[in-house]
Amino acid sequence: MAGTPLAQQIAFVMEIDKLKTVLRQTTLMDQSRRENSAEHSWHLAVMALTLSEYAEPATDLTHVVKMLLVHDIVEIDAGDTFAYDAQGYTDKAEREELAASRIFGLLPDAQRDELLALWHEFEAIVTPEARFANALDRLEPLLGNYITGGGSWKKPGVTLPKVQKRMEPIGNVSQALGEYVQQILAESVAKGYLRES
Amino acid sequence: MAGTPLAQQIAFVMEIDKLKTVLRQTTLMDQSRRENSAEHSWHLAVMALTLSEYAEPATDLTHVVKMLLVHDIVEIDAGDTFAYDAQGYTDKAEREELAASRIFGLLPDAQRDELLALWHEFEAIVTPEARFANALDRLEPLLGNYITGGGSWKKPGVTLPKVQKRMEPIGNVSQALGEYVQQILAESVAKGYLRES
Repeated sequence: MAGTPLAQQIAFVMEIDKLKTVLRQTTLMDQSRRENSAEHSWHLAVMALTLSEYAEPATDLTHVVKMLLVHDIVEIDAGDTFAYDAQGYTDKAEREELAASRIFGLLPDAQRDELLALWHEFEAIVTPEARFANALDRLEPLLGNYITGGGSWKKPGVTLPKVQKRMEPIGNVSQALGEYVQQILAESVAKGYLRES
Repeated sequence: MAGTPLAQQIAFVMEIDKLKTVLRQTTLMDQSRRENSAEHSWHLAVMALTLSEYAEPATDLTHVVKMLLVHDIVEIDAGDTFAYDAQGYTDKAEREELAASRIFGLLPDAQRDELLALWHEFEAIVTPEARFANALDRLEPLLGNYITGGGSWKKPGVTLPKVQKRMEPIGNVSQALGEYVQQILAESVAKGYLRES
């Protein structure tokens, strides 16, 4: 069956197993180890189902879930870039574009194009679906950092204004989620989980 | 915000983080460690997107993906039951029903009912969506065991007829996938990854 669509699809399915070994800066909520990008993607997809009522009107939930499932696959080649690492962000786009070509390129052409388009849409943060997916991608580490008493907020250079700026898109999607985030951040500063400046 | 729908939803989102610590009998394809049920669920959801053309006609893919995302959440309380463990299966249903009530019960009532229904549908394996979800749940460890030279097939009591029986539902959903599975199993026996009897 070499060269058949099924062979290409199985090759892709096997390749993406590697996302389970890409480690993020955040830990699990029980702090037992660092979170990987595959389980993070699962968590975001379930969050999309659970929090769908906070998306903008007429947001296509299926599209959000698909985007979240594939949004981090490029990290297999490009690695996870820490959200507060300005240096790492300079060549992030280029590294990830190469990764997307190689990994999604394992699939038959029509599927490659579909997943590439989903990933580009996620990165562009223009459609309501991408805005909601992006908001959830910011919300999950906030919850993790709060519950672990700081987590990756404890790294050098991370301060309340930087986290607030990163969390801003959440409030742009949903006032209710935005207010919740502000409340968590205020508590986190009060409890010493996050430096005010 | 205690007691609000958002508070209930966030409590659920935080609770399900624990699925990342539930270990399965299979390892990652690079054999570096055991796979957990959260990353497994992500893998199945991406497989559903990738292999959707092999589902039965008129299968609702969104429904399949939702089912796969929540199908293992009960393992947070009930643990993962090894597919070839007849003993563990005797009280599996009861343990998992209690778990589903507790964990999905963290959500507002309408959402609790929706996720409970998705999980029951997955377990019943009657609808085309559940049959496809179930087939993928069997296919993923097969790929992992093949690529790792045996994996969990090496455990006592696992033989070709038992694996063939477990993989049967894949061929019932899709002839192409079923033939692929037979080919992998024949190679696995030939290579000594799986005992013939």
